[in-house]
Amino acid sequence: MKIAVLGCGTVGSGVVDLIDELGSVYAKRCSQKSVEVKYILDLRDLKDTPYETRVIHDIESIINDGEIDVVAEMMGGTEPAFTFCMRAMAAGKCVVTSNKQLVAEKGEALMAQAEKNDVAFMFGASVCGGIPVLRNIFSCLSSNKTESFSGILNGTTNYILTKMTEEKSSFEAALSDAQKKGFAEKDPTDDIEGFDAARKTAILCSACFGSHVYPDEIKTKGITEITLEDVTYLKNAGFAVKLIGRGSVKDGRIYACVAPAALSEKDILSGVRGVLNAVFIKGNAMPELMLSGPGAGKLPTASDVVADILECARLKFKNEPVYSWSEHRDGIMGDVDLSEKRFYVRGFSNDTEKTTARVREAFGGIKLLSDGGAKDIAFICEADGRSVLNDRLDSADGFVPVSVIPVL
Amino acid sequence: MKIAVLGCGTVGSGVVDLIDELGSVYAKRCSQKSVEVKYILDLRDLKDTPYETRVIHDIESIINDGEIDVVAEMMGGTEPAFTFCMRAMAAGKCVVTSNKQLVAEKGEALMAQAEKNDVAFMFGASVCGGIPVLRNIFSCLSSNKTESFSGILNGTTNYILTKMTEEKSSFEAALSDAQKKGFAEKDPTDDIEGFDAARKTAILCSACFGSHVYPDEIKTKGITEITLEDVTYLKNAGFAVKLIGRGSVKDGRIYACVAPAALSEKDILSGVRGVLNAVFIKGNAMPELMLSGPGAGKLPTASDVVADILECARLKFKNEPVYSWSEHRDGIMGDVDLSEKRFYVRGFSNDTEKTTARVREAFGGIKLLSDGGAKDIAFICEADGRSVLNDRLDSADGFVPVSVIPVL
Repeated sequence: MKIAVLGCGTVGSGVVDLIDELGSVYAKRCSQKSVEVKYILDLRDLKDTPYETRVIHDIESIINDGEIDVVAEMMGGTEPAFTFCMRAMAAGKCVVTSNKQLVAEKGEALMAQAEKNDVAFMFGASVCGGIPVLRNIFSCLSSNKTESFSGILNGTTNYILTKMTEEKSSFEAALSDAQKKGFAEKDPTDDIEGFDAARKTAILCSACFGSHVYPDEIKTKGITEITLEDVTYLKNAGFAVKLIGRGSVKDGRIYACVAPAALSEKDILSGVRGVLNAVFIKGNAMPELMLSGPGAGKLPTASDVVADILECARLKFKNEPVYSWSEHRDGIMGDVDLSEKRFYVRGFSNDTEKTTARVREAFGGIKLLSDGGAKDIAFICEADGRSVLNDRLDSADGFVPVSVIPVL
Repeated sequence: MKIAVLGCGTVGSGVVDLIDELGSVYAKRCSQKSVEVKYILDLRDLKDTPYETRVIHDIESIINDGEIDVVAEMMGGTEPAFTFCMRAMAAGKCVVTSNKQLVAEKGEALMAQAEKNDVAFMFGASVCGGIPVLRNIFSCLSSNKTESFSGILNGTTNYILTKMTEEKSSFEAALSDAQKKGFAEKDPTDDIEGFDAARKTAILCSACFGSHVYPDEIKTKGITEITLEDVTYLKNAGFAVKLIGRGSVKDGRIYACVAPAALSEKDILSGVRGVLNAVFIKGNAMPELMLSGPGAGKLPTASDVVADILECARLKFKNEPVYSWSEHRDGIMGDVDLSEKRFYVRGFSNDTEKTTARVREAFGGIKLLSDGGAKDIAFICEADGRSVLNDRLDSADGFVPVSVIPVL
């Protein structure tokens, strides 16, 4: 099997390195005479690297080379990646990609192209690189109707929340530490506002529920409003705060969101610490499968890309509906708030004692987490959805809510 | 695709139920016109059940029916399951099995038969039913050289240990509760002595390291000697006791054992509670993948069987070395004790104060977990392997060790 790699950045070079090292092992595993990278498409010349002799700058050489079985796209971005992938499939080549943005925005067109040209299109590495969550959904759980998932889909925010919980860092200090360690970008917006998690949630919804969901359909809230007080009150009460992307399907409607949530310390996701990612999946036959792993990084992501390349060979480079969604295309987004029944609330008042009594009355009972010493009032309460919650909070005269986190 | 089910017990009936309910969905997922169960081989007639009209008592009808693409074996035991599977493959049919004993004892012969007859032989459900750990190793991690694994592979013992830890039950009370709830057999030997976990560890070693390992090669210790004192001392020090099956490979030697171990509460496996199972896998490219799930049960196990059946169709019913081990057949078992460096030890003496001082001296420092009030002395110490540990314990005059648990 001969492979062309598009883009020799972090993941792309990882793919080349793995195949250069283990090509002969891979060949046995997928019944090929050999597994090797023939071309590396990159803008640079990559002089004095192990890649130099294979570098080309022109996609045409790849498209026109009948020897190339699989094109592995790791350029990132939508264009020219999309055009290159479409052309490669039209030329009868399988396409494997780790490009989250490409799959989230153009997944449907790419799948249709794969079907039309009877080639494989695989994107296992596009969500949580290093955790084969898509392959688990499409292959290991192919026997299931997936009912719901929830996951810690962003390592940067999980690192920040873990540091706040375990080391009593403020949000700002934890973010700054994550930037120093290279876990967060200089401009961390994409991570801390939940946009990265929303793209992954969109792909997981599409994969789990069979209908393409776009990132901008996902109601998204990041972690910037979570304070050390919130994390500490909840920790003392036996809960961990996590940024959770979740989705479920009921009566043909898809419900999905990204938002901070409080998880009981008995919840297996609550033990997923630091930069680790994790996804919990529930199917009709498989009630609880949890996968956790790095979620990013050169070799872990390359590992997923190469597994997809080997799978192309096992499928004889033909189209099989392994990674695809088309089972019920009429899924409409529903309002996830309706399913929330329990909340952590923190706020303040000028008369803690009186206001606490009013809050207690409004909810007919709460679990108080604050000790009454400060102006803070923090508690866990029950309410049938957000609008009921808000009505009750409004009715507690003198209470000014600051922070609301659903308890899952 | 037409399927014959051998054995309509718990898992077998689950497979028929899933296919009866979701056959048309499955057909799309693996590009077949239909997916259906044509025969159910069972000793009983299964009168007045949904299975009745498909029941047969004679394997010959299945072997001789050219319409049957896949035989799904869920009879259990080695014979006649082995003979039936060998014959089915000789007749050109793919075989899928959930039979742990069959795979552990006859895996090599079955794989050779599959290769010889160019059919698929799949056994994803034979370890931790409901956690697709084998499919993850062979498919999702096909790009990796697996270096080590460790897992909670037995739900009964994990339930007992969780109950001891969280509810301060004695071992006897927790076992009796597990029996009442149906999590433990009347004769629980196979679970509590670690034999069940050893069979799974053997299959995982074979799958991860490419060389067939037999259960009786695995050094095995169960949980019968773990006391409430041990669990409590360790819990208070931030550790959870788990029955761990583990394996690793170094310089062509395979190291493996089943034994209780103390895990830090920051270790993701320590949060796997109750009857849940989990496996942690480390490959050269994928540093930490953790899978957790039910590990047993009708539908979860059937889910793995059906996923394998669909995979047979995706591979056009041909042999692909998906589930197989043959990469380095010269793996010899090594002594896992060598890798242990930290231990929990509990014992007693007639003079706690003096003996504690001697223990402290023997190890050049220990972390004392007991409070000196009782005759118990419990501590965590470091030593370079078991024999060094034992020498040092011997040298602490007056100390009688009762319990030793490695800290992983």
